Amino acid sequence: MIDHYDGVRAFDWKGDGLLLLDQRLLPHLTEYVHCRTAEEVADAIRGMAVRGAPAIGIAAAYGVVLAVRQHGLATECSRQSVFHEIDRLAESRPTAVNLFWALDRMRRLLDRGAGLAQVEQEARAIHEEDLLANHRMGAFGAALIEPGLDVLTHCNTGSLATAGLGTALGVIRTAYSEKRIGRVFADETRPWLQGARLTAWELKEDGIPVTLICEGAAASLLRTGKVGWVIVGADRIAANGDTANKIGTYGLAIMARRHGVKFMVVAPTTTFDLSLPTGEGIPIETRPMDEVTSLGGRPIAPAGVDAWNPSFDVTPAELIDAIVTERGVIHQPTVERVRAVLGGL
Amino acid sequence: MIDHYDGVRAFDWKGDGLLLLDQRLLPHLTEYVHCRTAEEVADAIRGMAVRGAPAIGIAAAYGVVLAVRQHGLATECSRQSVFHEIDRLAESRPTAVNLFWALDRMRRLLDRGAGLAQVEQEARAIHEEDLLANHRMGAFGAALIEPGLDVLTHCNTGSLATAGLGTALGVIRTAYSEKRIGRVFADETRPWLQGARLTAWELKEDGIPVTLICEGAAASLLRTGKVGWVIVGADRIAANGDTANKIGTYGLAIMARRHGVKFMVVAPTTTFDLSLPTGEGIPIETRPMDEVTSLGGRPIAPAGVDAWNPSFDVTPAELIDAIVTERGVIHQPTVERVRAVLGGL
Repeated sequence: MIDHYDGVRAFDWKGDGLLLLDQRLLPHLTEYVHCRTAEEVADAIRGMAVRGAPAIGIAAAYGVVLAVRQHGLATECSRQSVFHEIDRLAESRPTAVNLFWALDRMRRLLDRGAGLAQVEQEARAIHEEDLLANHRMGAFGAALIEPGLDVLTHCNTGSLATAGLGTALGVIRTAYSEKRIGRVFADETRPWLQGARLTAWELKEDGIPVTLICEGAAASLLRTGKVGWVIVGADRIAANGDTANKIGTYGLAIMARRHGVKFMVVAPTTTFDLSLPTGEGIPIETRPMDEVTSLGGRPIAPAGVDAWNPSFDVTPAELIDAIVTERGVIHQPTVERVRAVLGGL
Repeated sequence: MIDHYDGVRAFDWKGDGLLLLDQRLLPHLTEYVHCRTAEEVADAIRGMAVRGAPAIGIAAAYGVVLAVRQHGLATECSRQSVFHEIDRLAESRPTAVNLFWALDRMRRLLDRGAGLAQVEQEARAIHEEDLLANHRMGAFGAALIEPGLDVLTHCNTGSLATAGLGTALGVIRTAYSEKRIGRVFADETRPWLQGARLTAWELKEDGIPVTLICEGAAASLLRTGKVGWVIVGADRIAANGDTANKIGTYGLAIMARRHGVKFMVVAPTTTFDLSLPTGEGIPIETRPMDEVTSLGGRPIAPAGVDAWNPSFDVTPAELIDAIVTERGVIHQPTVERVRAVLGGL
């Protein structure tokens, strides 16, 4: 049933190359970037042909496979080249921790003397585990939603941002298939318009009713009482539940609390960074000004104007009603409750 | 001194026509719409060649002058044509009350038997009074700002939205000329991008440091502690101080309160609608979906996607620290405090 609402895929692994649906061109063009080297994968991540915390981790894992194919593992020199490629992949985006988690997992495998076949198997496993995790999170998250209201989401957390189904959008797809929600409101998500270009496209492709709003209209929408939950993904979650996610998330959480609307974060346990006690330590990527001052190569502001373009913000745990992981739900997150669900991670 | 920071004008009245700086084309092109009839003025307001609550009122007043020139006042039939044109002007935008205020003032003058010369004089008076009111509000508002921090504003409330200087931007220009603030952060203000296209342009023209942000970055900015005041304009203010303003204002007020940042509304007394006890009764214009789903004629969302595009929202008085009018400041607005400053209005 749920597969009926999950028709989109961001990846196609070809054994000797990785096809990435170019998310910069959606929804106007459906074209693929063909990465044949780890460097091309790093460029695709940095340039946002592929984006979304889980998707970046999966792409990077396949990037390691391509590095091993390219350089081999026979000599110390070739191994060094592979580890150099892994470092380059790690520098492609700074905030999402899934990237570092996936690369660490590949690195540990190589340290144990794995060959190409095992490396490729590990990347495929990372890919498949993500899809399974999303199905589990979909079930856990949807179960929290009392039927009868709509939901609001931010950015894109769907099949395009993951191995499939999505994190926040996985919960939303599941809730829709279970008739718990009637409609999805999607923030357009400036400056990159992931909501308008990607979320609206995914949901439309899958026949789920979607209404686009500008971020500025969110407070008015929440005031109407139509929305029961704001549901978002995450790029990195600290040990106490503080959550870094796409810029605009923190403001939404403040507005949701003001209106008594519940706030749900949906993220696999690979998104947690238990080395950070709070969100204060999460590095926030600042992207180029021209993402704000121009659109599709055309200026939308006076030439030379200054802009501030942080790509993420941190929502404090106290504004979050539930963090949904594949291991279960963390209600009103605290250090202890996060530890209780994540266990020995 | 303050004139040094106020070089832009939206209007040029020619006696037999009204030149409007076309705000749809800024900042890329500086072109004027030449309105020779009241109908052309109504079209310019509806199409947003001119926008901003006070500016709409001024344009409409000149529209009445053009109607009188066109139809004359000699016969009952010609007078009826003039009043018909006034009704058409009143239908051009629904939310800003300054439009209805200016048209009522012109209508009353005609009812008293005024001729063309008096009608033109009245329109000029409305125009000049607005500029003087802005200078008074600039002084009152700037005096509230403790030196040393920056400010955040929304939409465009500057010389382009008024007879000159601006409402919120008039306070900001004054505060900058008095060295009370260092920098202006401007919300880009989706979907119409008044902040990116108009506010950033005005401030740059006048040499006031401006940094553009997307609405989604406002909460992160307010969290830094750099911003002492959020300063906005208004389209209609109810008797209790509830304030309708550009969509996104209400969310900003919620975020400002959360961070202990003060929230100032700047509007001439003509923006008050004392017939409405609270903001509940303010009609909110919903504009076409394609303002959200396309930009500059190019789609930015999948074809046929649904969008919700309310043009204004209502900020409850309890979130407002000060409403600055040309008659004085209403602190922590209530019905009684509004009445105390507005007096017999």
